[in-house]
Amino acid sequence: MKKKVTVLGNGLVGSVMALDLAADEKYEVTVCDLNAAGLEKTKKDSGGRIAVRTDVDFASPQSISDAVKGQDLVIGSVPGSLGFAMVGAVIRAGVDMSDISFMGEDYREWDAEAKKYGVTTFEDVGVAPGSSSVLIGYACDMLDEVEDVTYYVTGLPTKPEEPFNYKLVFSPDDLIEEYVRPARTKKDGKVITIPALSGCKPVHFDIPGIALPEMEGFFTDGSRTLLDTIPSPNVTEYTLRYPGTAARMEFLREVGIFDLDPVDVKGTQVKPRDLFGALAYPKMKLNPGENEFTFYHVEVTGKKDGKRLQYQYSLYDERDMKTGYPSMSRTTGFPCVIVGRLIAEGILKMPGVNPPEAVGKNHKAVEMFIDELKKRNVKIHHKIVEL
Amino acid sequence: MKKKVTVLGNGLVGSVMALDLAADEKYEVTVCDLNAAGLEKTKKDSGGRIAVRTDVDFASPQSISDAVKGQDLVIGSVPGSLGFAMVGAVIRAGVDMSDISFMGEDYREWDAEAKKYGVTTFEDVGVAPGSSSVLIGYACDMLDEVEDVTYYVTGLPTKPEEPFNYKLVFSPDDLIEEYVRPARTKKDGKVITIPALSGCKPVHFDIPGIALPEMEGFFTDGSRTLLDTIPSPNVTEYTLRYPGTAARMEFLREVGIFDLDPVDVKGTQVKPRDLFGALAYPKMKLNPGENEFTFYHVEVTGKKDGKRLQYQYSLYDERDMKTGYPSMSRTTGFPCVIVGRLIAEGILKMPGVNPPEAVGKNHKAVEMFIDELKKRNVKIHHKIVEL
Repeated sequence: MKKKVTVLGNGLVGSVMALDLAADEKYEVTVCDLNAAGLEKTKKDSGGRIAVRTDVDFASPQSISDAVKGQDLVIGSVPGSLGFAMVGAVIRAGVDMSDISFMGEDYREWDAEAKKYGVTTFEDVGVAPGSSSVLIGYACDMLDEVEDVTYYVTGLPTKPEEPFNYKLVFSPDDLIEEYVRPARTKKDGKVITIPALSGCKPVHFDIPGIALPEMEGFFTDGSRTLLDTIPSPNVTEYTLRYPGTAARMEFLREVGIFDLDPVDVKGTQVKPRDLFGALAYPKMKLNPGENEFTFYHVEVTGKKDGKRLQYQYSLYDERDMKTGYPSMSRTTGFPCVIVGRLIAEGILKMPGVNPPEAVGKNHKAVEMFIDELKKRNVKIHHKIVEL
Repeated sequence: MKKKVTVLGNGLVGSVMALDLAADEKYEVTVCDLNAAGLEKTKKDSGGRIAVRTDVDFASPQSISDAVKGQDLVIGSVPGSLGFAMVGAVIRAGVDMSDISFMGEDYREWDAEAKKYGVTTFEDVGVAPGSSSVLIGYACDMLDEVEDVTYYVTGLPTKPEEPFNYKLVFSPDDLIEEYVRPARTKKDGKVITIPALSGCKPVHFDIPGIALPEMEGFFTDGSRTLLDTIPSPNVTEYTLRYPGTAARMEFLREVGIFDLDPVDVKGTQVKPRDLFGALAYPKMKLNPGENEFTFYHVEVTGKKDGKRLQYQYSLYDERDMKTGYPSMSRTTGFPCVIVGRLIAEGILKMPGVNPPEAVGKNHKAVEMFIDELKKRNVKIHHKIVEL
C-alpha cells in the first residue's frame, strides 16, 4: 500500500521535496500552499502525480491538524514564523514529520507531547543544521570521548561580484540576522556568547575532488541544539564567505545600517535595515543561469580505543543546471525528504521531537542517508584521520 | 591711518580671521553675519574691538556691494553656494579680497571684470588648496623645468575611533563629495579622470619633528586650478586617512549608500545619503576637548641649473587647546587672513581673480607668508633634496 505524504509549503525547497517523493511509486503526495499557480507548476513538473490543496491555512493549527490527519508522513516547509505552532498541530494529528521550517523557538518544548502521541518528529533537517548535524551526531557516537566539534558552512555564487560577493540563497532577513545576532559557541564545556562576524580568519581546505575558492571563516549563531545535545566540550561553527566580507558587514553593522530602530531622516522615520534591503537585495539576487555552490566541512575530534582520531566530512554541491535547482534548495530539501522516507519506512522510529544529530545514533539510518544523498548526486566526502 | 576690513561670515573660520585682524592696531574690523549671538561672542572675544552687522544679505550681490564699498579689504568666508556671486559683488564695489568661500564654479570667470576695476582678488586661500598651493607655485617658479607635483593632505582626529576613524572638520556634504566625485589628475601633460578613492596605497613620511600615525593615501578631486595654472606635466593630489578608510567608503559608495536619487523604502521615498548622514554624522562629530591635526606634504620635482631637485614642504598643526580652535580652522583661516594683509599692505598687488598658487611668483610675499604662519604657531618644514 502506498504511503500518504502531505508536504506543507510549496516554496523553493518544498517543491523540490514534493517532486522527489512524487517520482517514487511508493508515495502518494499532497502539496498544500496558498499559491495556486505555484502548485500547478509543481503538479505539472511531477507529471500530474501530486494532489494539490490551497485551502490549508498554515497560520491555523486546527486547519493543519485537519489537513494532515490520517497521513503517514508530513514534510514541513512553512515560513519560520509559523513553524513552532505547526509542529504542535502535526503532533496532535498523530502524524510523523520531517521538518525544514526554521523557527526561532526551541521546538523541543513539544517533545513530551510527541512522546505522548507516539509521534516521531525530526526538526532542522536541512544542510547545516541538518545533514552536517547527522554526521556530527554519528561521529560523536563512534568515538569513546569527544574533544572538539568544529564545522564550516557556506552557500556562495561561483563567480563573486562586487560589492557583496554574495547572492541570496535563503531569506534576506535571515542573512542579516546572521551578521547581527550574537553567536553562541561552546568552549571547555561552557556556552559563551561572542559577536557575530568575529573570529574571522582565512580558511583553506585541501579536499580531493573539491575545488574551492579562497574564503574566510567567522562566527555566526548557527549551532542551535548542538550546543547541548552532543557530548563535546567544544562546539564551533564558522560561516564562510569570500575574503573581506566579515569586515565589510561588521562595518555596516557598526555604522548602524542594519538597525531596526527607525531614525529620523529629514522628518521621515526610516528603518535603516529597510533602506539597506532596498539598495542591496536587488544586487544580491541570484540570476537564473548563475552557478552557485553549497559547502560544508565537519571535523569531529576525539579518542577511540586509545587512539586520537578526527572524523572529517565534506559536502560540496553546485546548482543543477538541468532542473535549475540551486544547490541550497537541493542540499536543504534532500536531507529533509530522506529523513522523512526513513521515518515512513520504519528505519527511524524515535517518538519525540528530535534534532537532526539524533539521526546519528542510528548507524543504519546514517548509512542509508548518505547513500540516498549520493543517489541524488549530493556527495559527501569522508575521511578518518589519526592524529 | 587704519585699514578698514570687512569679514563676510562669522563661522568657525571667519571668526578666527576676524579676531586675528582685530588683535592688530592697524586694522578696523567689521564682521557681517545673520547670527547675532555668534557675532556677540566674536565681539566679546575681541575685547570689543570689532563692529558687527546683521543687516547684510549674502544672497544679495547688491547688499554685499553696499556693505563693502569704501573698505580697504574684504575677507570672504561665506557658504560655497553663495561664493561665486559674492566675488562679483565685491569686485564691482572696487574692493580687494582674500577669500576662503569654497565654490563649485570657476571663479576665474570674474578675472576680466576684476582687472577692469583694478581689484586684486585671491581665491581658495585655505590649507589645500591654499597654503600648499602658495608653496607649489613658489617651487615651480624656482625650478627651470618642473617634472612632477605630488601632494598629500588630511585633517584627522589624533585618536581614531571606529567605525569611521574620522571626525568632521568641514562640511559633511563636502566630505561625501570627496568620496563620490571623480578625481581629476594630470599625467604626462593630460588631465585624466579617475574614480575617487582609487590609487589607494599605504603612505609613510619621515619628517623630523612630526610624528604621524600610519595612514593611506588615495585620489580625490582637489587639485582645482593647479591642473592648468602650473607648468608641471604631472599633478597628483592624495587625500590621507587612517588605513582601511578608502575600501570602506568605496564599499558604501558601491552599495549605493551615498546616492542622492531617492529609493523606495516600503512606500516611502528616501535619499540614501540622507539616511547615511542621520546615522553617520553624529558619530563623526568632533568633540570639544578632542585633539585633531591637519597635515600636508608637498613634493615638487624638477631641474634647476642642470641638477634634479625636489622641493619638499610639510605642514603639521594640532588643535589649539587654549583657544579651542581646531587645526583645520587655524590652517584654513590664517593663510586667508595673511594673504589679505599682504594685499592690504601693498605687497600683493595683482589685479584680477587669482588662484593661491599665483602668490608663489612673489617671493617676498611667500617669505612673509611663511613667517606670518610661524608667528601664529603654524610651522612649515621645508627641504630641498638633490635627486
